[in-house]
Amino acid sequence: MRFDLITLFPRMAEGYLQESMLGQATKKGLLDIGVHDLRDWSQNKHKTADDRPFGGGAGMLLSPEPLFLSIEEVATPGAEVIYLCPDGETLSTPMARELAAKEHIVLVSGHYEGIDQRVRDTLITREVSIGDYVLTNGTLPACVLIDCVARYIPDVLGEEKSLTQDSFSDTFLGFPQFTRPADFRGMQVPEVLLSGDHAKIDAWRREQSLLKTKQRRPDLLEKRSTSRPSGKEGPQ
Amino acid sequence: MRFDLITLFPRMAEGYLQESMLGQATKKGLLDIGVHDLRDWSQNKHKTADDRPFGGGAGMLLSPEPLFLSIEEVATPGAEVIYLCPDGETLSTPMARELAAKEHIVLVSGHYEGIDQRVRDTLITREVSIGDYVLTNGTLPACVLIDCVARYIPDVLGEEKSLTQDSFSDTFLGFPQFTRPADFRGMQVPEVLLSGDHAKIDAWRREQSLLKTKQRRPDLLEKRSTSRPSGKEGPQ
Repeated sequence: MRFDLITLFPRMAEGYLQESMLGQATKKGLLDIGVHDLRDWSQNKHKTADDRPFGGGAGMLLSPEPLFLSIEEVATPGAEVIYLCPDGETLSTPMARELAAKEHIVLVSGHYEGIDQRVRDTLITREVSIGDYVLTNGTLPACVLIDCVARYIPDVLGEEKSLTQDSFSDTFLGFPQFTRPADFRGMQVPEVLLSGDHAKIDAWRREQSLLKTKQRRPDLLEKRSTSRPSGKEGPQ
Repeated sequence: MRFDLITLFPRMAEGYLQESMLGQATKKGLLDIGVHDLRDWSQNKHKTADDRPFGGGAGMLLSPEPLFLSIEEVATPGAEVIYLCPDGETLSTPMARELAAKEHIVLVSGHYEGIDQRVRDTLITREVSIGDYVLTNGTLPACVLIDCVARYIPDVLGEEKSLTQDSFSDTFLGFPQFTRPADFRGMQVPEVLLSGDHAKIDAWRREQSLLKTKQRRPDLLEKRSTSRPSGKEGPQ
């Protein structure tokens, strides 16, 4: 699968993309990620890609020309061209699964006050938000989207099973987890986890998961009861 | 204001933190951001900071000892110690405003299956999620939180006015924006924006904002009608 990111701040993304799971997936050839500097498509001598908005107002806007030229050069036919913006569709696990089936995703990172509306109306195929808050630009959200989607590409996650245990993989929040030492400064690991009785451990984890979901996110349980049954009753 | 980030992947955050608004705010002395490698507090000779979970299951968990030692060393008295995790409280504009009033925020980035529950129960003062999806680790979410909160620290945003016009600053989505040229490949900028009539432009923008919010996020208008009146009727 290929991702291309078009941004005014390529260095903002590079450190992240070379590290951890994504760096490893790229080395293995499972992922191919290109990061492009929007200024490379600027046609003026100062290599600027922004301008003041028509009608007045604070801040700058990304100009149509470099965005059109860059997207036209980078996007392959049928590519999903995503603009990251706070008024887009909210990123979710089902959306990430759906996007993981695409062959090519182009991500357009806005900055300042956003991008010229004509780009949104003609070249952007989907607008995505990572949450109800505003950031200085779309480069971090683009990295969040790549990370989230890449997890659903086969073989990218080393241990496949890990995926099914996470919060939101099946609408329940995760259960409490403990590792060595069993006694740390007098704080003990719950006895059931040391029992070796896997049926009991599973039951305890299911119960803890459900309890935390009820306390913290009852909306997830409501959503679940109105959506298709998943056949899964707990984080296993 | 000071942020400290404790992570297994410091390089993931560094590129981002040196760029754009945050890099500038740091240079101006408005922000002070420390990035720490959790492995520096590992007490074993391989400098590992993770271990397998008690009770079985896939993946690794961050161990209590290096987390306790690092948080105890880095956090000042009264600091907010935030663990980024998908089962935390969802980041929002009101939360960002609230956090911007703190003097010191310590961010703990989990990895793999998460962190030992004893750390969450004793040292973590707040658990925050950036959205209903799972990522490979908490370093990107920590950067998202820093970016989002930093916008509300006085003088960090160059043009203060810019803040009030963004989506979610006052529960309406943003209006369409256009910049030069007025005619790009035959696509015209709406005439009203070229009129110079600011009352008319304001009215058009308000209308567009409300229309987009109604179409895309009617839930925001419902929320608004049940919350305190803001005295603001549009993105101005």
